[in-house]
Amino acid sequence: MKIAVVGATGLVGRKIVELLIKTCSCPQDIVLYASKKSAGKELCIQGEKFIIKELNKRNIQKVDYALFCAGGKVSLKYAKYFIKKGAIVIDNSSAYRRHKKVPLIVPEINFNQVGQAKLIANPNCSSIGASLPLFALMKTYTIKRVVVSTYQAVSGAGQRGIDDYINKTTNKFNYQIAGNLIPQIDYALKNGYTFEEDKMSFELKKILQNRSIKICATCVRVPVVNCHCESLNIELDRVPNLKTIKGLLQNMEGVVLYDDLKDGKEPMPLVVDGKQEIFVGRLRKDTSNKYAINMFICFDNILKGASLNAVQILQKLIKIKK
Amino acid sequence: MKIAVVGATGLVGRKIVELLIKTCSCPQDIVLYASKKSAGKELCIQGEKFIIKELNKRNIQKVDYALFCAGGKVSLKYAKYFIKKGAIVIDNSSAYRRHKKVPLIVPEINFNQVGQAKLIANPNCSSIGASLPLFALMKTYTIKRVVVSTYQAVSGAGQRGIDDYINKTTNKFNYQIAGNLIPQIDYALKNGYTFEEDKMSFELKKILQNRSIKICATCVRVPVVNCHCESLNIELDRVPNLKTIKGLLQNMEGVVLYDDLKDGKEPMPLVVDGKQEIFVGRLRKDTSNKYAINMFICFDNILKGASLNAVQILQKLIKIKK
Repeated sequence: MKIAVVGATGLVGRKIVELLIKTCSCPQDIVLYASKKSAGKELCIQGEKFIIKELNKRNIQKVDYALFCAGGKVSLKYAKYFIKKGAIVIDNSSAYRRHKKVPLIVPEINFNQVGQAKLIANPNCSSIGASLPLFALMKTYTIKRVVVSTYQAVSGAGQRGIDDYINKTTNKFNYQIAGNLIPQIDYALKNGYTFEEDKMSFELKKILQNRSIKICATCVRVPVVNCHCESLNIELDRVPNLKTIKGLLQNMEGVVLYDDLKDGKEPMPLVVDGKQEIFVGRLRKDTSNKYAINMFICFDNILKGASLNAVQILQKLIKIKK
Repeated sequence: MKIAVVGATGLVGRKIVELLIKTCSCPQDIVLYASKKSAGKELCIQGEKFIIKELNKRNIQKVDYALFCAGGKVSLKYAKYFIKKGAIVIDNSSAYRRHKKVPLIVPEINFNQVGQAKLIANPNCSSIGASLPLFALMKTYTIKRVVVSTYQAVSGAGQRGIDDYINKTTNKFNYQIAGNLIPQIDYALKNGYTFEEDKMSFELKKILQNRSIKICATCVRVPVVNCHCESLNIELDRVPNLKTIKGLLQNMEGVVLYDDLKDGKEPMPLVVDGKQEIFVGRLRKDTSNKYAINMFICFDNILKGASLNAVQILQKLIKIKK
């Protein structure tokens, strides 16, 4: 079984290769693609050496699966060629997420929607993070409305985002992010929202298969290297019972209830970095609305927010093929 | 006219002295108090040299005004002695804010409540920041509910907070704050909220003189040296008109409407540091509730969030005495 990783030199690409080696593939079966700039270079991941191939029409090999993480333009241009040669593409970019025929998958939630799709979209990091605890609640409650404010790490903007943070440069971000906050992620829309905020609203509805949930997001970049946080205010259809909700979260695959303020258990980047689950804490009733609760979540945006979710989709695909 | 500053060696205390020199007092008329540890030491502020006096019962001089910024315990112990000697005390701690007879003042909003009070409380930083734009809206709308998530700088925890951030120590905070977030400020209450979150809810109602506003806060410490941010979701009594709201904010004393995403105008710590106003941006209708709007605010928590607000109270007191 051959697997291609397109955009293999980036933060997410390298993490995908690492996860593939650790979980499901022989290094010899992994083909790494990147731009012309990186072609021919050697990349060492988990002690294995790879030679980067240039991504162009002529170089595209027949593979079983291709994981794309090189941005929307690359996906739009090259995904189809991999599919033509028989591959199933798992795309980490936002290029196809809104296409009606492209399933948008968080494996613990809606893997059953994959069907016979040759192109599967991996959701945006902030959407994946919120989707799991929200889905847990939906097993008992109907969610009416979510108001979310995010605290997003610079790794979400790739290595250049991290470099900006470390070197106090502004190559990736419009403003210095070290010692600062930037209340804008992705471009501005006409209605005053950013595309990142719109993604959260659109993608959560698609993943949770519920168009009637109302979602309002404020997305903010913070000076943290890795791990996104989100402050969620969730309005339910009836008065919530915290014990019930704790049970739902504890039983949800991919979620860790990490909630004991007095014992210092609260979801934080330095605790959650490198972990595979969405950590949920600060669970409490909303004092301003008896139907609502608050929670604060933290997750590794490079892992479950991107690479791990894609690899988990791949693993499930392989499993059903067997 | 003599003015005492109690807790003069702290971040807020030094800023108060600086503001006093710049605006309303001769340096000779300012008496600086601090703990025994600092007593006798020289402090140089705005080129003026001061010798710190130890705060103890015997040392308390007759002054016209005493500005306290040495924490609740010191206020509880010593404010009364200054008052006995004829002073009006402006207290920056949380010690008296909830006392029915103690006015809690943001000068642009409710200075008329000062009356004949000998003890005036300065609100908590996060409350001051939110109070001004909320008050602006109240000139045309009734506010039903506010859901707020904060992004609070380490300077809010004083010099030790800044030291923890710079040196990656944990002397002030329970966890490393550099490269991290801590979703807990002040101690945990039984209902799952923190005292900081409870302060916001209680104080905003008192400042805005409206007990029916429902407020739900999540307070988070972020790795930023100075300037707090807040993401506010505000539900009004009727469908908001953004033009009207922009007008209200533009006409509000102490508020700067700084809202043009496409032009890069968004409230951020590195833009707002050292400024006296509350900067308001990211103004937009809530896509999840037609009666609600979102805004993102940023303000210098050491200035308007503490020292400046106290000095503005003082200035208004002096003015009405004349």
